[in-house]
Amino acid sequence: MKNNDNTKKTEEEVTTMKENGSDENSSGRGIPGPTNPMVTPLLTDLYQFTMAYTYWKAGKHEERAVFDLYFRKNPFGGEYTIFAGLEECIRLISNYKLSEEDIDFIRSCLHVPCEDGFFEYLRGIDCSDVEVYAIPEGSVVFPKVPLMRVEGPIAVVQLLETPFVNLINYASLVTTNAARHRFVAGKSKTLLEFGLRRAQGPDGGMGASKYCYIGGFDATSNVAAGRLFGIPLRGTHSHAFVSSFMTLDEIKDKSLRKKVSKSTCKDFVSLVQAWLSKLQRSKSLRGVFAETNQSELSAFISYALAFPNNFLALVDTYDVIRSGIPNFCAVALALNELGYKAVGIRLDSGDLAYLSCQARKIFCCIEKEFAVSGFGKTSITASNDLNEETLDALNKQGHEVDAYGIGTYLVTCYAQAALGIVFKLVEINKQPRIKLSEDVSKVSIPCKKKIYRLYGKESYPLVDIMTGEDEPPPKVGERILCRHPFEESKRAYVVPQHVEELLRCYSAGTSGKETEPLPPLKDIRERCIQQLEKMRPDHMRRLNPTPYKVSVSGKLYDFIHFLWLNEAPVGELL
Amino acid sequence: MKNNDNTKKTEEEVTTMKENGSDENSSGRGIPGPTNPMVTPLLTDLYQFTMAYTYWKAGKHEERAVFDLYFRKNPFGGEYTIFAGLEECIRLISNYKLSEEDIDFIRSCLHVPCEDGFFEYLRGIDCSDVEVYAIPEGSVVFPKVPLMRVEGPIAVVQLLETPFVNLINYASLVTTNAARHRFVAGKSKTLLEFGLRRAQGPDGGMGASKYCYIGGFDATSNVAAGRLFGIPLRGTHSHAFVSSFMTLDEIKDKSLRKKVSKSTCKDFVSLVQAWLSKLQRSKSLRGVFAETNQSELSAFISYALAFPNNFLALVDTYDVIRSGIPNFCAVALALNELGYKAVGIRLDSGDLAYLSCQARKIFCCIEKEFAVSGFGKTSITASNDLNEETLDALNKQGHEVDAYGIGTYLVTCYAQAALGIVFKLVEINKQPRIKLSEDVSKVSIPCKKKIYRLYGKESYPLVDIMTGEDEPPPKVGERILCRHPFEESKRAYVVPQHVEELLRCYSAGTSGKETEPLPPLKDIRERCIQQLEKMRPDHMRRLNPTPYKVSVSGKLYDFIHFLWLNEAPVGELL
Repeated sequence: MKNNDNTKKTEEEVTTMKENGSDENSSGRGIPGPTNPMVTPLLTDLYQFTMAYTYWKAGKHEERAVFDLYFRKNPFGGEYTIFAGLEECIRLISNYKLSEEDIDFIRSCLHVPCEDGFFEYLRGIDCSDVEVYAIPEGSVVFPKVPLMRVEGPIAVVQLLETPFVNLINYASLVTTNAARHRFVAGKSKTLLEFGLRRAQGPDGGMGASKYCYIGGFDATSNVAAGRLFGIPLRGTHSHAFVSSFMTLDEIKDKSLRKKVSKSTCKDFVSLVQAWLSKLQRSKSLRGVFAETNQSELSAFISYALAFPNNFLALVDTYDVIRSGIPNFCAVALALNELGYKAVGIRLDSGDLAYLSCQARKIFCCIEKEFAVSGFGKTSITASNDLNEETLDALNKQGHEVDAYGIGTYLVTCYAQAALGIVFKLVEINKQPRIKLSEDVSKVSIPCKKKIYRLYGKESYPLVDIMTGEDEPPPKVGERILCRHPFEESKRAYVVPQHVEELLRCYSAGTSGKETEPLPPLKDIRERCIQQLEKMRPDHMRRLNPTPYKVSVSGKLYDFIHFLWLNEAPVGELL
Repeated sequence: MKNNDNTKKTEEEVTTMKENGSDENSSGRGIPGPTNPMVTPLLTDLYQFTMAYTYWKAGKHEERAVFDLYFRKNPFGGEYTIFAGLEECIRLISNYKLSEEDIDFIRSCLHVPCEDGFFEYLRGIDCSDVEVYAIPEGSVVFPKVPLMRVEGPIAVVQLLETPFVNLINYASLVTTNAARHRFVAGKSKTLLEFGLRRAQGPDGGMGASKYCYIGGFDATSNVAAGRLFGIPLRGTHSHAFVSSFMTLDEIKDKSLRKKVSKSTCKDFVSLVQAWLSKLQRSKSLRGVFAETNQSELSAFISYALAFPNNFLALVDTYDVIRSGIPNFCAVALALNELGYKAVGIRLDSGDLAYLSCQARKIFCCIEKEFAVSGFGKTSITASNDLNEETLDALNKQGHEVDAYGIGTYLVTCYAQAALGIVFKLVEINKQPRIKLSEDVSKVSIPCKKKIYRLYGKESYPLVDIMTGEDEPPPKVGERILCRHPFEESKRAYVVPQHVEELLRCYSAGTSGKETEPLPPLKDIRERCIQQLEKMRPDHMRRLNPTPYKVSVSGKLYDFIHFLWLNEAPVGELL
């Protein structure tokens, strides 16, 4: 990672590094440690250490092994996945070092008196001889294609299996989930990630905020994530806030300075009450509004007094149409009179399609009757157990929602709580290895490989093709045979208009190769959004999407099947 | 927390504290900071700070508020839940302090020029005036009953809402999931948590290991969790390990010291090969075994040479019956000849019921034919996408599995990825508050309450009852009316044989009350196991379990309904 572009390191990253205390571990390659300080060399399965000891004892530990990290099936019934989590993996290996305490602990775990030389060996491990090639974070990716190719001494690379899979699995899953929510919501809507309280633990919450942002969300409610990753923050108040107020008498300081003139309205409460009566007498609203809840009104006024420039009210604590909306409108109109512009309302229960349309009608009536320019466009945010299906249903019913706050279903990936990332040995000592299985979908694709994405005339990606490392790359304008890795009859000639090599070097090991910089979060998010836009629409649709094709070269196909026959003892059922 | 029993603090806790660097934050009350250093006062929703500012500006911030933390529905279609995550909440508040950097960041988030006095106020917050009453961690709990009652200045308690819900939600969910797996597996089986790679991020992995142990698992594969929490560790080798070996020629040092006599077998490989031929010629096995895979045999022998006392082999890389088991048996019998006892096999694919029964038959045949005492009892571990349903199916089919390694479905809580923990205001300034909803199950139970568990003659818990704080407690042998909180017709008299008050003081605030110690992990696990055993079996069964009853006193019932009518404006549909 010698050539990593340090100039791109953001202030946040530096802060993180210091906070994590991981600058002490820093190998001088300028890459901070993992965001979560709990990501250490011990965050791995015990068997990685028992295997390491066995390799060491057998003198095999330095044998050069190549592992592919990939998944077998797209999540959520879709035909695409977003790759995320790479930066955390690179941060881990860039600072990889077992401490003396770690080593003592491993010694105590192995149950047997292991030879001291092994612990001496562990002491020296630093991943400086590990090469990592990966598809850039934020890319659209597909099953069976290696997202990462990790090469190095077998004992070391095995130690990395568990943390790499852990760091990629949820990151890619939740990024994909966010992208799917963005797809259904449409580009014009604001998407807010509100999942911290329902996430699977604190790190689930931090990860969700980071990766939902990459997947196309606009902001989060999670303050720590805002600070650590620079993600925009959003939030106003809760039901408890509303019901913690009792009456208007509670409001002691009723004054509010006008926005522009700097003169002061001495009794904002009375101004709001005057607007409320006007609304109650309004002709165009034809008696929609009667008595409203005074606890709620007191809460809204208090909030407006604190945040006159940023007044957004949760309107469903008592009754949206009879109380929440008129109370909001009265405060918003009073603010308007003082030169402020209210932001909008949030609906957190009930029939969101119906309520949003009713609210919009009322806002438009008010704009007309009271000549408040732009009031009809007052923002409507919806929350309450939203997911892809409910967003889709809202679209079908028609609604007036401008922004969605999404929590539980987004961050826990309720519809599918894990992406089956695997990490398979494909070569050792330059010998290709295959993992057989009765289930063809579980047979691994052997060999150290290169991956190309071939683009067609309309500049859509057409197919990903894997080749052996030494094969010549596909050429623009030249016909190439793309074969299904396991089904003989599935094959097609492709004449690519553009060829993109997918795997790039993120850790050079001792090869001296130039490494890719770790881009800032915003660039990863931008890549994700752009890549999704480049996809052919039929791969993206929610119902019955067309699978994107993943293939191997003719040469690799032949080799896979040669090796398969070779490894499968004759007469066994495979 | 002044009276907290520090003598119970384990060495691990002290280590954690130091590792987290949180000893600097320690308030001197002897409680270390949260296990995950990312759990800070900023790990909360932005709206908790916007509300805090509004409360402060309205002069309401010091108003004494009481919040209940509870859930509305048991997870996984069951009728019980295990409460977990309490210790982390207490660790957070015991060390709660916003740093100057935190405060600067909050200032930058609030979008408006907030008054300086507010930031001065934030600077002083330390939770020393927050009282936390909770049901002990590891207890069996039920919907609607407060697991925690948090009382303090409203602005402060609201800041705690998000982290508390975050820390309890997944912890309780995954503990319950583990307990359910234990229930189906049965007491005699060994349960291993193998979920780190599929957990939702690093903290999901750490939490899963900790809370599955509380829920009744015996060990984890997660080394960091083993170190941090003192959980027993387990693990041997993977498929990649097996396929990384090619031939027996790779084994250079073939010698193995005998267990007892300390003399050395110079060629363990030949000894294994001799046993393999014996097995191939065996009469009782009647030609089951022919050629086995030499890559696998080489891997097994290498593993046995490294861990002769702890030989457990993954037998499904090529073919369980034709290759994995005979290779294992040959190595195990060779080890036996040198005085070692092999541990067993692991099956990670295929028909686990059938394969485990076949394996057992072979082990028993070998015990008989070769007079190797105890060989029939060789341990069989099963893994591969296990969950409650597959364990149940295995039980119905009949199997010979001794231990289960469970990952994805356990740690991600695939069947239901979130427990809907909520945090509701029930009292402010001694005024009870109710949250209404069109959905009765979402109406909150107002008032600062006490909770009692009433036990019947057979010492089973019969019902939980909530009363107002000042009501006299239920008495042993005295009849008490238990009412459903919302359904008028559901009520029953109970004569308790034993009465247990559930909420105990974990943070005394300024009350000077004695606080409960934070017990070590093993005690929490023990409580969980014991509480589950005390439950009436019909509440516990997987299919159509009987709901456990949760009730309120007659007085509280009347008050709820009085308040409800009072708050719901006449003529509204609620």
